[in-house]
Amino acid sequence: MPGRAERIAADMRRALRYPSRMAKNRLEAFSDGVIAIIITIMVLEMKVPHGTDCAALVPVLPVFLSYVLSFLYVGIYWNNHHHMLHTVQRVSGGVLWANLHLLFWLSLFPFTAGWLGQNHLAALPTAVYGVVLLMAGTAYKILQQTIIARHGRDSLLGRAVGTDWKGYLSLAIYLVAIPLAFVNVWVANGLYVVVALIWFVPDRRIERALKRED
Amino acid sequence: MPGRAERIAADMRRALRYPSRMAKNRLEAFSDGVIAIIITIMVLEMKVPHGTDCAALVPVLPVFLSYVLSFLYVGIYWNNHHHMLHTVQRVSGGVLWANLHLLFWLSLFPFTAGWLGQNHLAALPTAVYGVVLLMAGTAYKILQQTIIARHGRDSLLGRAVGTDWKGYLSLAIYLVAIPLAFVNVWVANGLYVVVALIWFVPDRRIERALKRED
Amino acid sequence: MPGRAERIAADMRRALRYPSRMAKNRLEAFSDGVIAIIITIMVLEMKVPHGTDCAALVPVLPVFLSYVLSFLYVGIYWNNHHHMLHTVQRVSGGVLWANLHLLFWLSLFPFTAGWLGQNHLAALPTAVYGVVLLMAGTAYKILQQTIIARHGRDSLLGRAVGTDWKGYLSLAIYLVAIPLAFVNVWVANGLYVVVALIWFVPDRRIERALKRED
Amino acid sequence: MPGRAERIAADMRRALRYPSRMAKNRLEAFSDGVIAIIITIMVLEMKVPHGTDCAALVPVLPVFLSYVLSFLYVGIYWNNHHHMLHTVQRVSGGVLWANLHLLFWLSLFPFTAGWLGQNHLAALPTAVYGVVLLMAGTAYKILQQTIIARHGRDSLLGRAVGTDWKGYLSLAIYLVAIPLAFVNVWVANGLYVVVALIWFVPDRRIERALKRED
Repeated sequence: MPGRAERIAADMRRALRYPSRMAKNRLEAFSDGVIAIIITIMVLEMKVPHGTDCAALVPVLPVFLSYVLSFLYVGIYWNNHHHMLHTVQRVSGGVLWANLHLLFWLSLFPFTAGWLGQNHLAALPTAVYGVVLLMAGTAYKILQQTIIARHGRDSLLGRAVGTDWKGYLSLAIYLVAIPLAFVNVWVANGLYVVVALIWFVPDRRIERALKRED
Repeated sequence: MPGRAERIAADMRRALRYPSRMAKNRLEAFSDGVIAIIITIMVLEMKVPHGTDCAALVPVLPVFLSYVLSFLYVGIYWNNHHHMLHTVQRVSGGVLWANLHLLFWLSLFPFTAGWLGQNHLAALPTAVYGVVLLMAGTAYKILQQTIIARHGRDSLLGRAVGTDWKGYLSLAIYLVAIPLAFVNVWVANGLYVVVALIWFVPDRRIERALKRED
Repeated sequence: MPGRAERIAADMRRALRYPSRMAKNRLEAFSDGVIAIIITIMVLEMKVPHGTDCAALVPVLPVFLSYVLSFLYVGIYWNNHHHMLHTVQRVSGGVLWANLHLLFWLSLFPFTAGWLGQNHLAALPTAVYGVVLLMAGTAYKILQQTIIARHGRDSLLGRAVGTDWKGYLSLAIYLVAIPLAFVNVWVANGLYVVVALIWFVPDRRIERALKRED
Repeated sequence: MPGRAERIAADMRRALRYPSRMAKNRLEAFSDGVIAIIITIMVLEMKVPHGTDCAALVPVLPVFLSYVLSFLYVGIYWNNHHHMLHTVQRVSGGVLWANLHLLFWLSLFPFTAGWLGQNHLAALPTAVYGVVLLMAGTAYKILQQTIIARHGRDSLLGRAVGTDWKGYLSLAIYLVAIPLAFVNVWVANGLYVVVALIWFVPDRRIERALKRED
């Protein structure tokens, strides 16, 4: 049994090591929890219809479509968040808050997805949906930069981000789509689908490449 | 303290090992989170009645029954998901997305269970409930095949699936029950109960067999 | 790198060991998730009032009180569930389903607590609240017996349960309180408070005893 | 394979060690779960507006602002809870209940944030928001003292709390802001923002100091 002095010394050592070790697991677990809740409560915006015929389902359809798109987006964020944190070794307060900032914008998805779906893809809801996508994309970029600033440009993540054309392209497409929402909602919403596919499709190609090496 | 070059090399090695190791734990934790939320928010569809006499509880009864059935289904999926992932060693992007696809259909349970229950088991809600069961069952099958494709036919899961008559029988019963909903809702809903019992009952028999060997 | 045959053999060994090892962690994590969601979504039954004066808060008060009581109950269940699973070494399918059965009755707390609170502790909601408490208490007892049946009467849990007067006393009080709800709701609800205090208070006394030994 | 007697002996040893070891992980995981749910369901109070023009968004704005403030508060609590539990080695029943007491007051945030936002920061909702902040702050202090009582004044946490001017200042500001709500809601709400910034800003300064030492 260690004496009091040794226990305090061990406490101190642990506390100084703290910002590096602690948060990784709990940060992942907390983010997973928040993302799991976001992806699930979005379905609550699909209000149970009162009738029991096909006509009762018609107003649910656009909500369903916006749910599918938003589910895909949250799934992509979870997947990428995963990959990014995998390379992290040291978690600082800056990373914690950059992560909470990302979760904040993701938490608005149920609201914007619900508003978009319940209004048959109207102009302003389409634009607001895009603004939240833009802010979430920017928050992701900030989190990435915060991690790189802590790990160094030549860390694995730093070098990988050198080729992050997908991140910048996504932000550019959002910036185009938001004003376009007031011209043609179908084109704007179509662009949101395009961004989702950009992330969804090639991820699997990279995986297959990795699998061949495996 | 390792030098920068060694740290990068370690990063690279870890990243290449990544698709195998990483996702297993977080995939389980995330799936558990989503399933725990689905199974719990379903109860929110049981709206608190306004009266305080027995008559106020009558409209809650069918919602309660559809809640019991859906709780049983989600419990079975959690249980089986559990067993299936237990045999997994390598998680690829394909497995991640096949898993999210399964979670997507499961996330529609609160909607379809609420619609079914609030309409006294009417025809279209019964059929839609069956369609979501069918899609969830198919998504489970796809996840299973994706894992087997990655682990090989002679892996433990591959050989176990050779006898997966329960999976195919369930899909067949759903396919029969969906059109039947427009003929007789009691038979259709009864078939959903039968599928739940098929999964619920023999699982315990296998467990008892394993216990004897234990 | 192990060959295919060795990998299959390892798979088989792991699968046979499975019912003992697997579920413990995931069972705890899943239960924690469901209980965390139940305890949190209960607050959604406290509807945001429309006015901004004290009169607007008056109808919230009984909902708040029923929320406090239900929070205490769920906290006690989480705490005891915790202690009980701590002694578990082998998780069977029976334990899994007995656990889901307990979670099912706990998941009805938001409904019964909301109904009780929104009706100023009326007779039928008080009785239904008690029925769900009774069912949850019974489900807890079943889970306990299922674990003991698997671990043996002379296991730690088996011997501890020999003195489980609190469990039986609680069930007896519920059985008295439920019909009493139709005579006097204050006495019935008071009895629910008494059961909560029975569990809340002495737990801390035991802890203090353990602390002294520590 | 150990004999029955040895297994019981091992059970006993584990059970006696229990209050020290067990709860730490599950306590963290459960708290993370509850906090993740609180931070996410707050967004459900931002009701999807019915119109699709800018006028439809105007009533959402104060709810959005109160959501941002409450998100920040819950984020700070999560962050600090994290740091505090990191130093904990022994979890007693008292710590468990002090922790549940904190979670109880945090769980009221969705209610008070929704009421505040939906009433354009009216006087009584502002005061009630402050009361819940005060109770959560007090519950945090109680949890801190419970942990210190168990670990000793000269433990790491005990010494750190010697300088906990932020905790006491926050409670003092709440005590000033609550009656002020009936004089000027802007000043009262401004004070809540000030407390959030007191916690948010210097945390990062400490982290940077630690980083330099790192």
